[in-house]
Amino acid sequence: MLVRVGPGEGEGEHDDGAEHGLGESGEVRGAVARVDPAEDRGQHALLGEGQRVAVDGVKVCERITDDALRLAPWDRALEEWARSYRAAFAAHPRAIPLLMTTPVRAPRVLAQYERAVELLLAAGFAVERVMPLLTGLENLVLGSALDLAAPEAMWEPTARTPLPARALGAVGEGRADAAFELALAAQLAYARTLLAADADAGGGPGTEAGPGTGGGSRRGG
Amino acid sequence: MLVRVGPGEGEGEHDDGAEHGLGESGEVRGAVARVDPAEDRGQHALLGEGQRVAVDGVKVCERITDDALRLAPWDRALEEWARSYRAAFAAHPRAIPLLMTTPVRAPRVLAQYERAVELLLAAGFAVERVMPLLTGLENLVLGSALDLAAPEAMWEPTARTPLPARALGAVGEGRADAAFELALAAQLAYARTLLAADADAGGGPGTEAGPGTGGGSRRGG
Repeated sequence: MLVRVGPGEGEGEHDDGAEHGLGESGEVRGAVARVDPAEDRGQHALLGEGQRVAVDGVKVCERITDDALRLAPWDRALEEWARSYRAAFAAHPRAIPLLMTTPVRAPRVLAQYERAVELLLAAGFAVERVMPLLTGLENLVLGSALDLAAPEAMWEPTARTPLPARALGAVGEGRADAAFELALAAQLAYARTLLAADADAGGGPGTEAGPGTGGGSRRGG
Repeated sequence: MLVRVGPGEGEGEHDDGAEHGLGESGEVRGAVARVDPAEDRGQHALLGEGQRVAVDGVKVCERITDDALRLAPWDRALEEWARSYRAAFAAHPRAIPLLMTTPVRAPRVLAQYERAVELLLAAGFAVERVMPLLTGLENLVLGSALDLAAPEAMWEPTARTPLPARALGAVGEGRADAAFELALAAQLAYARTLLAADADAGGGPGTEAGPGTGGGSRRGG
């Protein structure tokens, strides 16, 4: 879910907190969910350190994903969005569980989803592919952001279990980056395959899979 | 990371707690990290409800992944492992951040990684692919488990942002399952492609990508 919470656009739509979620993160959730320009600065001063970090992380990520989703073609936009989204949240791992389980209401955040869906529809994806594609990529991004917060030395092998150490030694430094890069490449490659299938099925040009053209079936609301 | 913590095998290797991680989950981390057969039953009785849930979730998942990793061929094993791993942790989302950031020391958990690495080496993957492949899939699995703990109605669209609602309507019930299935298929398809490339490069049979044979280059420690 691109960015779940952020400054509204003066429409007074606040997230009123948590009807669902992870109990232990309640204090952070409340702080993040209620960020709003009218009260932002005053409230920020009242937050604890962990809460300020979470709120700031959300704001940083919001700006980044705004820019990424304006890129073309669609797969370049998705790739840049995924990278910047992971980097922003890797610095704020405590914010991840609550962001993933709090409904999206802030108008500016909803506008980002609007742009992301529009991007993939314009590229030619079947409408039923779009949210699974975006959400699956988000799940990978946020899981990978948590992994980036883990120690580089995550396994402590013994004489009886030498293979993980050997496999990790072959990767070298940056095991979390290597895992994310491989999985991101997998998602983008599969998305290109799906686009080709959707183009064939939908009466499109029926060409081989490739980066989207960026043209086409933009739909208004 | 398959399952980070579980009953040891009587070798007295306890996880001594958390040198790294997410502060707010410290109380759960301590409980999970120290599970050991010698003290398991007694300690379990002393845990709070949330801690017991986390510990039980880890144990359930441990059994499931043990079985999945014995399947053949390798891609069936990975697929079943991913599905059961996600299902087990979806019921215990609070355990996810701490499991992802706590080093693995328990012998039985290390033995699971040993088996997973062995599985992929035997299938023919280049050694440097193995941990990125496993970790990337794990990141997707655990991110998707968090998503499964989120509300079905995750977005509350407005008149100005109609596209997410339309895209979600095309998916129907089970948006989290649809996202996970798409992303899992992407990871498995890409892994098959990588295996074909590794077979070509490594002097293997050089055949088209397909499920691994399960035979071959098993390496001792």
